[in-house]
Amino acid sequence: MNITDYMQAVGQQARAAAAVLASAETAAKNQALHAMADALLAKASWLQAENAKDLSAGRAKGLDSAMLDRLTLSDKTLAGMAEGLRQIASLADPIGSITDLNYRPTGIQVGRMRVPLGVIGIIYESRPNVTADAAGLCLKSGNATILRGGSEAIHSNRAIAACVQDGLTAANLPANCVQVIETTDRAAVGELLRAKDYVDVIIPRGGKSLIERVSQESLIPVIKHLDGICHVYIDDEADLAKAVTVALNAKTHRYGVCNAMETLLVAETVAAQILPVLAAKFSEKGVELRGCPKTRDYLPAANAATEADWSTEYLAPILSIRVVTGMQQAIEHINQYGSHHTDAIMTENYTKARHFLRVVDSSSVIVNASTRFADGFEFGLGAEIGISTDKLHARGPVGLEGLTSQKYIVLGDGQIRL
Amino acid sequence: MNITDYMQAVGQQARAAAAVLASAETAAKNQALHAMADALLAKASWLQAENAKDLSAGRAKGLDSAMLDRLTLSDKTLAGMAEGLRQIASLADPIGSITDLNYRPTGIQVGRMRVPLGVIGIIYESRPNVTADAAGLCLKSGNATILRGGSEAIHSNRAIAACVQDGLTAANLPANCVQVIETTDRAAVGELLRAKDYVDVIIPRGGKSLIERVSQESLIPVIKHLDGICHVYIDDEADLAKAVTVALNAKTHRYGVCNAMETLLVAETVAAQILPVLAAKFSEKGVELRGCPKTRDYLPAANAATEADWSTEYLAPILSIRVVTGMQQAIEHINQYGSHHTDAIMTENYTKARHFLRVVDSSSVIVNASTRFADGFEFGLGAEIGISTDKLHARGPVGLEGLTSQKYIVLGDGQIRL
Repeated sequence: MNITDYMQAVGQQARAAAAVLASAETAAKNQALHAMADALLAKASWLQAENAKDLSAGRAKGLDSAMLDRLTLSDKTLAGMAEGLRQIASLADPIGSITDLNYRPTGIQVGRMRVPLGVIGIIYESRPNVTADAAGLCLKSGNATILRGGSEAIHSNRAIAACVQDGLTAANLPANCVQVIETTDRAAVGELLRAKDYVDVIIPRGGKSLIERVSQESLIPVIKHLDGICHVYIDDEADLAKAVTVALNAKTHRYGVCNAMETLLVAETVAAQILPVLAAKFSEKGVELRGCPKTRDYLPAANAATEADWSTEYLAPILSIRVVTGMQQAIEHINQYGSHHTDAIMTENYTKARHFLRVVDSSSVIVNASTRFADGFEFGLGAEIGISTDKLHARGPVGLEGLTSQKYIVLGDGQIRL
Repeated sequence: MNITDYMQAVGQQARAAAAVLASAETAAKNQALHAMADALLAKASWLQAENAKDLSAGRAKGLDSAMLDRLTLSDKTLAGMAEGLRQIASLADPIGSITDLNYRPTGIQVGRMRVPLGVIGIIYESRPNVTADAAGLCLKSGNATILRGGSEAIHSNRAIAACVQDGLTAANLPANCVQVIETTDRAAVGELLRAKDYVDVIIPRGGKSLIERVSQESLIPVIKHLDGICHVYIDDEADLAKAVTVALNAKTHRYGVCNAMETLLVAETVAAQILPVLAAKFSEKGVELRGCPKTRDYLPAANAATEADWSTEYLAPILSIRVVTGMQQAIEHINQYGSHHTDAIMTENYTKARHFLRVVDSSSVIVNASTRFADGFEFGLGAEIGISTDKLHARGPVGLEGLTSQKYIVLGDGQIRL
């Protein structure tokens, strides 16, 4: 297979499908989503047989059990994928929505209509369920998709793509609205990242090294999620009971997620009171604490934090703690060491809350609630393709709207420029 | 001067200034804009003396009279620049604006707050007035700016930048909120386009070759305006009197602008009636007509259009004309040959108007009005830094809002994820 020719064909097919999909009726898109879900369930045993090929290759390659677990298409995974597609069908269609349609002094009406981006390239790692999720979100938002999954999931991804394409065909939509790259050749990724004429945006989903490679190489705009180095700052005017509950939840609700707290900042005047309480609770959960020198004055059992700790995303039961002089130092710490993802303040002071919301430069800024809320579902987007730490186009959790653009529309009755 | 070191210093200074500017008060930004305008007027004779250096160097270099005209800082140009800055001061401040703040079932409130992009790099050609316009728009939207003008305007741009920095200082804002690159070395442009750590977005303003170079080389996202190949389609159900007026305005109101019509599409059944009327009017204005074979059946005096004409932006008194079978062929022509800038239909048919608005993939889609309306002022944005033909982030005329992003804000009273 000539990879350049193959990828050009994939790109041209995606562009042609996108032109049809851009003005597809909402009913057809929803019908396709339900038909995809039906196909995933109807063909479960075939999907699992294809998945078994990936699993046995993965075991032979020595993948660890966590990776094999992510790779497995269990009955529960398949049911979850089908349910996810049906949920996307139930969301409002963003495409064609018109806002701000206002008369101008010239008599024309000017407004904005929501439109798809076009063709979205998605590059992801071993979880094959992304194939269905991403295809569903892109389809509902009127975009054609080119999916490039990990080579260790190739049989699973191809099989899922076949079910997705069955669903598209059932709704009389072009099967090429969703294409899975058929080759595991790494050169195909390079071609995808250079396919400016056929692909409008690239969304990488996976570990940091994947995302860095994609960002470096891509000639196409990338919507990416890099680090989640999230902070909770406990102010001297915090309600300390709330602060303990929120800090505990932010760290221990789940460890391996991007919106988990990695660094706790505590105002000096409340440190003596709150740190021992928190340390006891973190200790119960088995969380390792790494503190600044002042923290260790109150918590002698904590390990010493190094400079590197402040910019480390642990994704693990480890927490760095720094005692700060007050909100101003907390904000400076967050804007310097954080990843502009999600940061929270615990305070009952109105003026401080207002200031923190304004000046903290993160995609989600929170007052008196857990960082774990930074999530498309919790924010009410209905679904999420990822959390963007970029500023351009989409910032924070990206749902259907983040996969769209807006064009201007003008309605007149013969007006001309004078 | 070591260009790499110099550009790194410029980038670091811009990043530091942006951090201050992001939460600057509206009053301070407006004060700076008025003080800049005052400085431009107070220092008019000095600005014109600096400008004279560029003009005499330009004449020695053999610049043509149109270029020298664009380069000249006349009293009128300076008054226009000052007035433009005062108008930007009068616009609402987009920064900090909160929208869609709603309660979620968990009890948290989630909304979005408008924030600056950060640091904007602007690369432009010979018009020195861009220095003040762009600085003003970026300042009001809370962004630091790095400006790189054409080498033929270097003395003028430095002098304008000095006035701009006077204004910033008068309002106690960092002078580095607006920096003009002091060297004419072309390597500085390359450094700017690679300064990912310091620059968030690049906006090129100028001719096609500049914009293509910037797009090719930039490692930073680019908001760009490429071609304006705009169409008017006269439907068989158009009000022909309106259609004649609008087509004439779209072509002849100004020739050298991106929203001028370059191709006229006419439905077959009205071609015999309308083409001779239009041809007579275009002939009065001295517009050269280039027609498809069917057009020339009705207008034997028209030149023959070649395939290349359909994708040419004339920016001149030349118009290509194609007779089409109806709206469907018109839409196919527009989506194939157009530049997704601005396209209009003339029709009295409700269903066709609704369909055209939906399926034409352009940044501005117009029913029964001149393409010349595609403009930030006409659309009510108050000001415009350019017209984007991209889809990601900003599409169509880009005003203050296009220079901003949105972060999520969450207000709670101790909520945790369950």
